[in-house]
Amino acid sequence: MNNARPNMPVAVVGLGLMGSSIVVSLLASGHPVIALAPVPGEKEPALQHIVDLLRHAEASGLLVKGLNHYVQRLRVTEDYNEIAACHFVQECVIEDKAIKKMVYQKIAAHVADDAIIASNTSAIPISELQEFVPAPHRFVGVHWAEPAYMTRFMEVTCGTATDLGIAEQVVQLGKSWGKEPTLLRKDIRGFITNRLMYAVYREALTLVENGDTTLADADKVFRYDVGSWVTLMGVFRRMDFMGFGDYITSFERLLKELSNRSDVPRQMSRMVAEDAKGVHNRRGLYTYNEEQAKAWEEAFARFNKDIYELASKYSEQQLIEAIPYYEENKLSKI
Amino acid sequence: MNNARPNMPVAVVGLGLMGSSIVVSLLASGHPVIALAPVPGEKEPALQHIVDLLRHAEASGLLVKGLNHYVQRLRVTEDYNEIAACHFVQECVIEDKAIKKMVYQKIAAHVADDAIIASNTSAIPISELQEFVPAPHRFVGVHWAEPAYMTRFMEVTCGTATDLGIAEQVVQLGKSWGKEPTLLRKDIRGFITNRLMYAVYREALTLVENGDTTLADADKVFRYDVGSWVTLMGVFRRMDFMGFGDYITSFERLLKELSNRSDVPRQMSRMVAEDAKGVHNRRGLYTYNEEQAKAWEEAFARFNKDIYELASKYSEQQLIEAIPYYEENKLSKI
Repeated sequence: MNNARPNMPVAVVGLGLMGSSIVVSLLASGHPVIALAPVPGEKEPALQHIVDLLRHAEASGLLVKGLNHYVQRLRVTEDYNEIAACHFVQECVIEDKAIKKMVYQKIAAHVADDAIIASNTSAIPISELQEFVPAPHRFVGVHWAEPAYMTRFMEVTCGTATDLGIAEQVVQLGKSWGKEPTLLRKDIRGFITNRLMYAVYREALTLVENGDTTLADADKVFRYDVGSWVTLMGVFRRMDFMGFGDYITSFERLLKELSNRSDVPRQMSRMVAEDAKGVHNRRGLYTYNEEQAKAWEEAFARFNKDIYELASKYSEQQLIEAIPYYEENKLSKI
Repeated sequence: MNNARPNMPVAVVGLGLMGSSIVVSLLASGHPVIALAPVPGEKEPALQHIVDLLRHAEASGLLVKGLNHYVQRLRVTEDYNEIAACHFVQECVIEDKAIKKMVYQKIAAHVADDAIIASNTSAIPISELQEFVPAPHRFVGVHWAEPAYMTRFMEVTCGTATDLGIAEQVVQLGKSWGKEPTLLRKDIRGFITNRLMYAVYREALTLVENGDTTLADADKVFRYDVGSWVTLMGVFRRMDFMGFGDYITSFERLLKELSNRSDVPRQMSRMVAEDAKGVHNRRGLYTYNEEQAKAWEEAFARFNKDIYELASKYSEQQLIEAIPYYEENKLSKI
């Protein structure tokens, strides 16, 4: 692990939407991957899904070698014995502490003492999860975005017991996978991205419940406002482009109007009660017939490729070359 | 006004960053534009800035005719007498109620009774502003995004006295300008987009004040997470792609952790105290030398064109053609 190399075998445990997508990212980065299905019956559909995603990655120009090269380096299994040689194990099972505990115990019983175990959780503190493994200092949060093989987002999070050196090794690994990892030294609930996004969900869902807007209009404004700049810059760089003249007025007037609720908005409870999986089972916040769900999935697959390519023109690396002395963390003193 | 046509003369009052950009959008849409500088000394630099923006619009393929055609249809002035023939007047002066009041009184004294007056405000309620004009039913909020000639965002907002038919006429006008307007029937503070964005600012600035993250890292996660999907879809369509399995857990755990503050975060007070205009005067949340500020402005100009073109491939119109029976507001019943 100290000499992380592309052909180091790695494991992914949990082969849902995110897990399958992470498997493809790791394969595309050169790793042999043991893809472990902890749920009975998940193995066959997961293999099919992963191969489909590999095809999408190939069509998007992300694979250096032919499809079969990667398929041969993939092993889908239900047997924990097969992860024995893996020094990096990414867990992405559901957000249930008891289930995760059981999974970690099985992983820890099968890997070497110096393996790193990473969780994709964004709902449960790393500090709580690392109590379930014998080497908590080698346990870290690694939070991916979907589709994992076409996004640059990655949050690496330390629990209270995590060795910072281990977390920094994982950041380097993340860079070798083409990510732009952020390192969170303190294990705050929801890390950063989820806190920002749940702040948006809370406000938007409350406005909808109050009849002030619709989900579709909230989507529309977010899409056409944020969508016009965020692939280049975050919210604060955006402020540097807009100036600060009117911000104080807006902070003074708006903050006291924003929702401070902590109960679950009822649209969300309803979706879970209805087992809504959105486009995947055609029950979601929007309605879809089979044809529409398929068309949306195709549009998203095309879009992933397009936005990945566009973002590549404005990656940190590109900006470093285009903008002299650019340092990503160079902020004026606060 | 009932027969809104591209060559209908319109006026823009206030020629700062947004005002100049709106002038270009209206010129590019075919209108002759009276650009009124209410601040002494603003006229000359505004003319220069507008012509620069027209050049950017031309280089981006947004102008059907040559640059001079548009320059000849532009009149920059300080004289309110020149807006007499305009049946649509867009105000975008600073967010100061007393100043806006004075501006509206001057506008109303010079235009025809059936003119529509629109404010770009996002900080002051339309219901309060429309009290300053003799025909409040013809007063409406029209909130643009920067750069106005290359974004599709537009919020049309009714005050309590606004005639809904007038607001709907403005929505149609917005469509003729290539926008995707949302219509807000009720004048809620901050409309929709600002409430969503201030919810993000509140949370992110609080995390920074607490030492949990940095502005640069908050920017990075937002950029690489949201930036990977938002140009195609809003936050709720995104949920339909991710499924809802873990959302309840996250709502239950996260909402009670989010910031509920209503005071102005100190980074913002500091920016205003320092007269920070970001890249424009090289004082902002990030630091810039002259070369870096210029490089960022150039990167943004290039990016605007790229993202506008990419978004065009996934516009509402494109989605309607690609996705059978697509209806933007077709939501499952809540």
